[in-house]
Amino acid sequence: MRIGILGGGQLAMMMIKMSSNKHNIDFLVVDPSEKPPASKYAECIKSEYDDIESLNLLIKNCDVITIDFENVPSHALKYLEKHISVYPNSKSVETCQDRLSEKNLFLQNNIPTTKFKSIGSEKDLEEGIKEFGGDSILKSRKLGYDGKNQIVVGNQNAKDIWKKIGGMESIIENKINFITEVSIIGVRNIAGETFFYPLVENSHKHGILNTSIAPFENHTLQKEAEVIHKKITSLMDYVGVLVIEFFIDKNNKLIANEMAPRVHNSGHWTISGSNISQFESHILAISNLPLKEIKTPKYSGMINILSKMPDINKIEKIGVSNIFNYGKSERPNRKLGHITITCSDKKLLIEKINTISKILY
Amino acid sequence: MRIGILGGGQLAMMMIKMSSNKHNIDFLVVDPSEKPPASKYAECIKSEYDDIESLNLLIKNCDVITIDFENVPSHALKYLEKHISVYPNSKSVETCQDRLSEKNLFLQNNIPTTKFKSIGSEKDLEEGIKEFGGDSILKSRKLGYDGKNQIVVGNQNAKDIWKKIGGMESIIENKINFITEVSIIGVRNIAGETFFYPLVENSHKHGILNTSIAPFENHTLQKEAEVIHKKITSLMDYVGVLVIEFFIDKNNKLIANEMAPRVHNSGHWTISGSNISQFESHILAISNLPLKEIKTPKYSGMINILSKMPDINKIEKIGVSNIFNYGKSERPNRKLGHITITCSDKKLLIEKINTISKILY
Repeated sequence: MRIGILGGGQLAMMMIKMSSNKHNIDFLVVDPSEKPPASKYAECIKSEYDDIESLNLLIKNCDVITIDFENVPSHALKYLEKHISVYPNSKSVETCQDRLSEKNLFLQNNIPTTKFKSIGSEKDLEEGIKEFGGDSILKSRKLGYDGKNQIVVGNQNAKDIWKKIGGMESIIENKINFITEVSIIGVRNIAGETFFYPLVENSHKHGILNTSIAPFENHTLQKEAEVIHKKITSLMDYVGVLVIEFFIDKNNKLIANEMAPRVHNSGHWTISGSNISQFESHILAISNLPLKEIKTPKYSGMINILSKMPDINKIEKIGVSNIFNYGKSERPNRKLGHITITCSDKKLLIEKINTISKILY
Repeated sequence: MRIGILGGGQLAMMMIKMSSNKHNIDFLVVDPSEKPPASKYAECIKSEYDDIESLNLLIKNCDVITIDFENVPSHALKYLEKHISVYPNSKSVETCQDRLSEKNLFLQNNIPTTKFKSIGSEKDLEEGIKEFGGDSILKSRKLGYDGKNQIVVGNQNAKDIWKKIGGMESIIENKINFITEVSIIGVRNIAGETFFYPLVENSHKHGILNTSIAPFENHTLQKEAEVIHKKITSLMDYVGVLVIEFFIDKNNKLIANEMAPRVHNSGHWTISGSNISQFESHILAISNLPLKEIKTPKYSGMINILSKMPDINKIEKIGVSNIFNYGKSERPNRKLGHITITCSDKKLLIEKINTISKILY
């Protein structure tokens, strides 16, 4: 069995590391960058994602294709789909690439989400600001991960904001007063069977995920999130791991924010905190191997390492489960690695996360 | 940091997997076989171990060299040593390649070992059989891993045995009536600091390691094994993991049997059963990174998968820590993978090992 992956970042790297041995799977990665993290563990073709020669190599040498990055050109996925199984399919990935499609999908299927409006011009934006007021955000429809291409309106005028966002097609939406943020990580196989990880609570810093703590213990919201997830994967005929991020508002209700058609940063804790990691679950699903019921006997936390790698001896003294260094060069706000902790006592877990935070920042 | 490894088997594969991420180390492997296990996770040069071009590539691209296989030609290691650090050094590897040198080392340093005699000809063997009797074994001096090239004398005559062993230089030694077998795994850094794993109890099947269970709780023997290990590594100026295998005789005494100048099959359990695996310890030592004190809070067991891969879903249901599939083709008595189990209860551990054995055989 050989799996092709478009994108060779840390997510591809962990998919390979967590499944290659146990299931004797080989991998072939396409990534345009020099020595991406996955190149540590698999053969990488250095090329653009839609390079026809590379795509033909994947078709020839692989049994199934997946992604580690949702912004691969959908025409590349569509080309692949003519010749080989691609999971998740191009339709799902395309939907998740565009905030407007995501929002419309939520809206059309009665999934609570913030009020929004599509913005295609400065004039649209003027009208949008009138309607939504200063307490709103303009978000580009595409390429909007890690808080990129998002502008809080405040008292800026439409002209300035439109310039700042580079005239990119966007949506405007109400800022939401949320209690916290959670995500649901679910995996669906080809037969349509789905398994869920418990909700994980996320906190962000400068728009980038900072920490995740699981499980977020709320039976009602867990069930609601699972129903929403199943509705969406069924509509899209989705195979693999899909992650949906939610706000929890003041009324303790889930408000769908956005989706990732892949394994997700908020699921890194599953390596030490669950009987099966999100990475292995995804690989099982797309390889048409039996999925496993998910068990999470303890509490787990994940903290991202941004900008600069710490002294790992200091971190290890705290007693952590895993330290991942993605081998990237240091750069402000770049995700360079992460640390996970799993323990039986939630208080101790939080203490450890706080201690690590102090070392990191 | 880039480490070159001579040998791309499962030991190299696990060294790479267990250290590459955390310490951001790259690897370059030399192995003559097509797609050896380590090729899953690192760049492999397919060539003989003493191919001069490959050795020059290692010298040019790596910071330090190690081995996953003790039978690399020592002239290759000696060539490398002129240009780059090689750990363990060629002298240590050479000693471990030759049963006679090992035995002499034990003898000269008052380390208990079975009585033996060097055999270089059929005539030597005739005399040896006279002296040692039928209750003895002829073992080739070189290439004698996994019970290979060992012949129990019994009532065979010297001529037949000498033919069977192909006239290879050998030693004859008394068969020993042992209670059990254990190994000590220790890691020594460049400064000469050494850390030890607890003794692990091993059982063999057809001369091949079948199961390992740790810790073997005997404080006196633990200390004795550590003293012997320190004596040997200090004499050889050894850096990295060295494993010494012992018999425990009827008087509950350690009898040194043989050594491996590398990480060892009897230490696979350290991945889930210890705070630091033997693989990571070895890499830290040879990279001149600080070693960690070793903690083994639970009981662990390892069972080798020989000849045929089992249905891993069956194995997983038992509740195991890790399943490794080396990705090798099936062949009688070939090591194809292994399973490790870690738990707080030793009885439960033994039960699980027995259940797995029944599935495997």
